[in-house]
Amino acid sequence: MTYREAGVDVTGADRFVDSIAAEVLSTWDDRVVGRFGGFAGGLRLPPGYAEPVLMMSTDGVGTKAEVARIAGHFDGLGFDLVAMCVDDLAATGARPLALTDYLAVGRLDGNRDRALISSIAAACREAGVALLGGETAEHPGVLDPDRFDLAGTALGVVEAGSEVTGDAVVDGDRIVAVASPNIRANGFSLIRHLVLPRLALDEEFPGTGHSVTEELLAPSVIYAPAVQAALAAAPVHAMAHVTGGGIPGNLVRVLPDGLRAVVDTGTWQPPPVFAGVARLGNVPTDELFTTFNMGVGYLLVAPPESVADLVEAFARAGHDAWPTGHIATGEHGVELL
Amino acid sequence: MTYREAGVDVTGADRFVDSIAAEVLSTWDDRVVGRFGGFAGGLRLPPGYAEPVLMMSTDGVGTKAEVARIAGHFDGLGFDLVAMCVDDLAATGARPLALTDYLAVGRLDGNRDRALISSIAAACREAGVALLGGETAEHPGVLDPDRFDLAGTALGVVEAGSEVTGDAVVDGDRIVAVASPNIRANGFSLIRHLVLPRLALDEEFPGTGHSVTEELLAPSVIYAPAVQAALAAAPVHAMAHVTGGGIPGNLVRVLPDGLRAVVDTGTWQPPPVFAGVARLGNVPTDELFTTFNMGVGYLLVAPPESVADLVEAFARAGHDAWPTGHIATGEHGVELL
Repeated sequence: MTYREAGVDVTGADRFVDSIAAEVLSTWDDRVVGRFGGFAGGLRLPPGYAEPVLMMSTDGVGTKAEVARIAGHFDGLGFDLVAMCVDDLAATGARPLALTDYLAVGRLDGNRDRALISSIAAACREAGVALLGGETAEHPGVLDPDRFDLAGTALGVVEAGSEVTGDAVVDGDRIVAVASPNIRANGFSLIRHLVLPRLALDEEFPGTGHSVTEELLAPSVIYAPAVQAALAAAPVHAMAHVTGGGIPGNLVRVLPDGLRAVVDTGTWQPPPVFAGVARLGNVPTDELFTTFNMGVGYLLVAPPESVADLVEAFARAGHDAWPTGHIATGEHGVELL
Repeated sequence: MTYREAGVDVTGADRFVDSIAAEVLSTWDDRVVGRFGGFAGGLRLPPGYAEPVLMMSTDGVGTKAEVARIAGHFDGLGFDLVAMCVDDLAATGARPLALTDYLAVGRLDGNRDRALISSIAAACREAGVALLGGETAEHPGVLDPDRFDLAGTALGVVEAGSEVTGDAVVDGDRIVAVASPNIRANGFSLIRHLVLPRLALDEEFPGTGHSVTEELLAPSVIYAPAVQAALAAAPVHAMAHVTGGGIPGNLVRVLPDGLRAVVDTGTWQPPPVFAGVARLGNVPTDELFTTFNMGVGYLLVAPPESVADLVEAFARAGHDAWPTGHIATGEHGVELL
């Protein structure tokens, strides 16, 4: 029996997607060192760093991919992937430079894979990072033929000593929230469980004015360029990218011992999709806040005198931002008012 | 219905594995900047680079993970993962610095995941790279509960102008092969198709003296440290990491137009596992050579006067290496004698 007769083609996957990526990228990204089809891609470290620290962050789109598969709608997933990776990275103070993707499929699908890679490339362009390469793996018999998984790794750089770690957070610091108009890429196992059995994809998601597909698959906002602008505008002590675990689960990650973050949830109105999900599953509010971003995609902790400049920097980049709480001495944790 | 009642826990995965990784790594790796549980991990760029080019390479273990699942044997997969990533990177001339992993699971499994992360950490130590972090994602309903996928991204650095791209390859260059004692992590969709229905995991793989499990799941050799030593020992014009596509599919990736690589397959004896696979599926020899490494995990193209030094550098690092062919003017491609 030959390899082809066995019905498997693990060697063609990378080259197939290489050809798409080369076509998509060759028109615009001249920073890349190397060529598609090579063993790795690279880019020159930008000048101006005396002691560069290289930061990496790996993340995936989770089972938002499964909703995309069911809906047959793949154009936004690249933005979810790039946002998940570069916005984690940006929370350390690093400037994102580059990304690689990892696409695992049951079987290659030209239309879907072209849409995914094009979406990743467009999102990289928006984020200002070079798409250096990636891996496409066919896993016949492990993933169903039409299923896929999408992950990635972002690389960034920060000057040693300028990392934003949270160690500088003190009693009296303020918390600034940055708006997320939609679900981003977390909580989709719950979404699949609650929403898909109850609503058709093309009907209106109650209270939103959008279809279920539009509401669930709305692409993630990419904050990293605005975060870099904000860091240049005013001192920041800590940042949190609000993903799985919600505001409490992520803000606590950058909070020193002995300090407490107090977030006033009355300072904003969550997008209606979250109330819709809550009603469908009778999900209590505290579960909502530990599962979803609830309308806040990014949090910054900064001295009071930074707040106005940070809000303005985000506004200039097209993101709503507002003061939403403060840091106090007390039991380590995040309190939602 | 609460989140817990829905039976999904997407937020706990990372923290669960963070705790394993922190335990595994805290004892030995002091290069890492940041801490587990943060949004990204970093390390200082090593000194000595005037114009550093940062290289990234993403790869996975493919469906070797599926064989590991069936066998319940996970200790070697970290070596496969790290080898796939850092040995691709090393083929560009880059010095591997760091790695992040991506583990997608149907459901978390403490014993399995501890074995996987411990194995990745041990392999990173052998490769001399820092394990900077990773992502663990639970995909209930998409991956079967006991299935998983393992991928990773390596970061490396090379001085601008010192990248090994293949552009310097000329007529008359020699080809040096480096031994692989086993299958590494490619061709496993074919292996699963041919071997698993015909042989029990605990019986002897014919002609090898090892069990089927031992033979199929033997961990990949990590070449990157030896490759770095070889580059320091003598000029090299191109390198190829022999993965999916075998010797022809990978050597051609670094071969300039108008040149032909001639590889004399009579210069070595492939490990017996490959003949065993061929017999089980009546796989023709040319299919074997475009699917498996056939006993050669790495190839170097270099001027004739480099050959002895390269062979010696690999021998000093514990790898058999030998001259196996040459470069000639002719139709672009790889010819196996």
